[in-house]
Amino acid sequence: MADYAEIAYAVEGRIATITLNRPEARNGYTIRMADELGAAMDRADRDEDVRVVVLTGAGRDFCVGADLSQGGFDFDPDEGPGDAWQEPAGRCSKRIFTMNKPVIAALHGAAVGGGLTITLSCDYRLASEDSRFGFVFTRRGIYPEGASAWFLPRLVGMGTALDWMISGRVFDATEANEKGLVHKVFPTGTVLDEAKKLAQEIVETTAPVSVAVTRQLLYRMASAASPFPVHELDSKLIGGLGANPDAVEGVLSFLQKRPPSFGLRVDQDLPAYLPWLEK
Amino acid sequence: MADYAEIAYAVEGRIATITLNRPEARNGYTIRMADELGAAMDRADRDEDVRVVVLTGAGRDFCVGADLSQGGFDFDPDEGPGDAWQEPAGRCSKRIFTMNKPVIAALHGAAVGGGLTITLSCDYRLASEDSRFGFVFTRRGIYPEGASAWFLPRLVGMGTALDWMISGRVFDATEANEKGLVHKVFPTGTVLDEAKKLAQEIVETTAPVSVAVTRQLLYRMASAASPFPVHELDSKLIGGLGANPDAVEGVLSFLQKRPPSFGLRVDQDLPAYLPWLEK
Amino acid sequence: MADYAEIAYAVEGRIATITLNRPEARNGYTIRMADELGAAMDRADRDEDVRVVVLTGAGRDFCVGADLSQGGFDFDPDEGPGDAWQEPAGRCSKRIFTMNKPVIAALHGAAVGGGLTITLSCDYRLASEDSRFGFVFTRRGIYPEGASAWFLPRLVGMGTALDWMISGRVFDATEANEKGLVHKVFPTGTVLDEAKKLAQEIVETTAPVSVAVTRQLLYRMASAASPFPVHELDSKLIGGLGANPDAVEGVLSFLQKRPPSFGLRVDQDLPAYLPWLEK
Repeated sequence: MADYAEIAYAVEGRIATITLNRPEARNGYTIRMADELGAAMDRADRDEDVRVVVLTGAGRDFCVGADLSQGGFDFDPDEGPGDAWQEPAGRCSKRIFTMNKPVIAALHGAAVGGGLTITLSCDYRLASEDSRFGFVFTRRGIYPEGASAWFLPRLVGMGTALDWMISGRVFDATEANEKGLVHKVFPTGTVLDEAKKLAQEIVETTAPVSVAVTRQLLYRMASAASPFPVHELDSKLIGGLGANPDAVEGVLSFLQKRPPSFGLRVDQDLPAYLPWLEK
Repeated sequence: MADYAEIAYAVEGRIATITLNRPEARNGYTIRMADELGAAMDRADRDEDVRVVVLTGAGRDFCVGADLSQGGFDFDPDEGPGDAWQEPAGRCSKRIFTMNKPVIAALHGAAVGGGLTITLSCDYRLASEDSRFGFVFTRRGIYPEGASAWFLPRLVGMGTALDWMISGRVFDATEANEKGLVHKVFPTGTVLDEAKKLAQEIVETTAPVSVAVTRQLLYRMASAASPFPVHELDSKLIGGLGANPDAVEGVLSFLQKRPPSFGLRVDQDLPAYLPWLEK
Repeated sequence: MADYAEIAYAVEGRIATITLNRPEARNGYTIRMADELGAAMDRADRDEDVRVVVLTGAGRDFCVGADLSQGGFDFDPDEGPGDAWQEPAGRCSKRIFTMNKPVIAALHGAAVGGGLTITLSCDYRLASEDSRFGFVFTRRGIYPEGASAWFLPRLVGMGTALDWMISGRVFDATEANEKGLVHKVFPTGTVLDEAKKLAQEIVETTAPVSVAVTRQLLYRMASAASPFPVHELDSKLIGGLGANPDAVEGVLSFLQKRPPSFGLRVDQDLPAYLPWLEK
């Protein structure tokens, strides 16, 4: 177990659970927490035993946003942080964006400010009936972060994004669900179990390399100016399936009505030509 | 009538109905079907008697996706198909994308895998209560195709797209409707008639050139980085209306409370400066 | 009071109300109205006493679209208007797009054609139960304008945008609300009051500079190809907060459970590096 102070990390049954772990401060987000979250996501992404990540918070809240009581950010308030500095919510949301594995956020209590924007790049946001949400930045005299201006309109449309971000108002799980911010709402006290059930279903039914490619196809190719370059990449991917053991297993297991057993590995078998892979 | 083996093509009342016609194989998608669909869409697009296309399937299902029982794809499994090869779902979805005429998909039974992605560029997807849908690629060890990574988030938002495409789960007409994948759900057995009614309304009330331009305006200009270039094109289009007989007829028929009779033709009267027209 | 003939302009309690004011013509949109609307938006945007704009219409309708009875557009019908001409709906929608202050449209009765597209760049569209809407362009033999092909799919998704714009059909407040075109529907006769209440809440709870930046962050950065450049800008904005009095006041007022009193001004204090600012 790595030396985490503000999060917890546990793996069970191919599911890594990453827990914001400062319940005494309602999981207020700190620079250290950002560092540890980034490291934990790296670790889960590199570990072939891990198929799915669940992200949650200890105690009554998921995360109340930036905790400035620790002395705030890691730079001189007058000088500023310099050009290379990355604000901490985006460190997390970007790291999740680049994952090869799905991340399921299990939200309960407050998820506001940076405590909400860090979840916008998760594949799933599951909520508890006691959840409440807010992009409260305009009410604090500050700005939305975590690249939320990119993620939020893609999730809920521009009209709702403008409403929530301009007003800065707090809203409940029902509204979050109706507008598409969260995928489903569960009775209070059950959302973490439900997130793990969903993770388990993904583990049992899907091919790791297919999931990794699909997730990035959606994120990277949906911004193309037209479907044409997307179809070029699709054609390369489908054209390469002839000798692909996962594709064979997928068809065979379907025809034989048995659970699939996919063999390709994310750390070895991603097609090398994927345009988003770092060289 | 052209020599189609795996689809049927019929024109009645300015509506072309294209039917996937392998009910014995639940309309499993083949290379030949892709070729024939492309040819049929070309034909409908070039025929000035055709104003709207309805796309449906014979038998109980719309299409169960790729039928690999015919020996699969048209290339050597080890060598692959070469760089110019286009996977077959995208051949159809791209051809529909470039149409000057609206396409209404009338869906019933299963529309899964490639049997669903080929419909994502249709203007309308109408469903039957017995419809079921699935982007099942991750469950078969393969990848989404048909440029679906471009189309799907535009229809249902990124959150739902990630859910459906990562999980690969099958879902029903109610969920498809709530999330915006389909426009409306009809009682089982009635969806084809309803599609034709909608087609008929479009025939009777709209101008062919207006529809052709509008459809492509949405598809081609919505990806612009800002509204400014879109408004430049709008200004050119509106500025050209002074001597436009359809615009005159549109206003006159409205004032005279009678059905319009638009005279401009898609094959002759599209403004030559439209940036998406092939030179 | 400026010399407006076709609109009215009034400021009360930091809210500017701009009213389309040709009720005898159901607020039919003219070139003069476009000129006056642009001037009024400019005025509200430059006036530091104004925090929020409410846009509404006098009489029973918001706006029935272009009024061609005045002799139509300001150019020769055969020659056309020349390359620099801007169609009038987009003059308004683009001016609202570039505002530093939120604009709330209070809609009632008919909002069709150009009378609807001019509202698509408003931050909020509130509707009355008697509202009805239509992108009726294809039924008049013309084309959508106001850069609506850019705005509409961002608000309601591509599927609904294609339906409404291809069919040109008129739809009611319930459908507009369910699909996300409007934010909320109010009993007939109350929507203007409700718009002012919402405006008042924004005035009392939010920081003007935060709102100005947030609004443009969403509009300008959501079209980026990836979240990475968005996070670069976020980092600059958040990194500059150390010595920012609004950020201090935001935290203090929150901790002290009192209304905030933000001091930064839109006309003086926008960060100079914002990429959308005109040099």
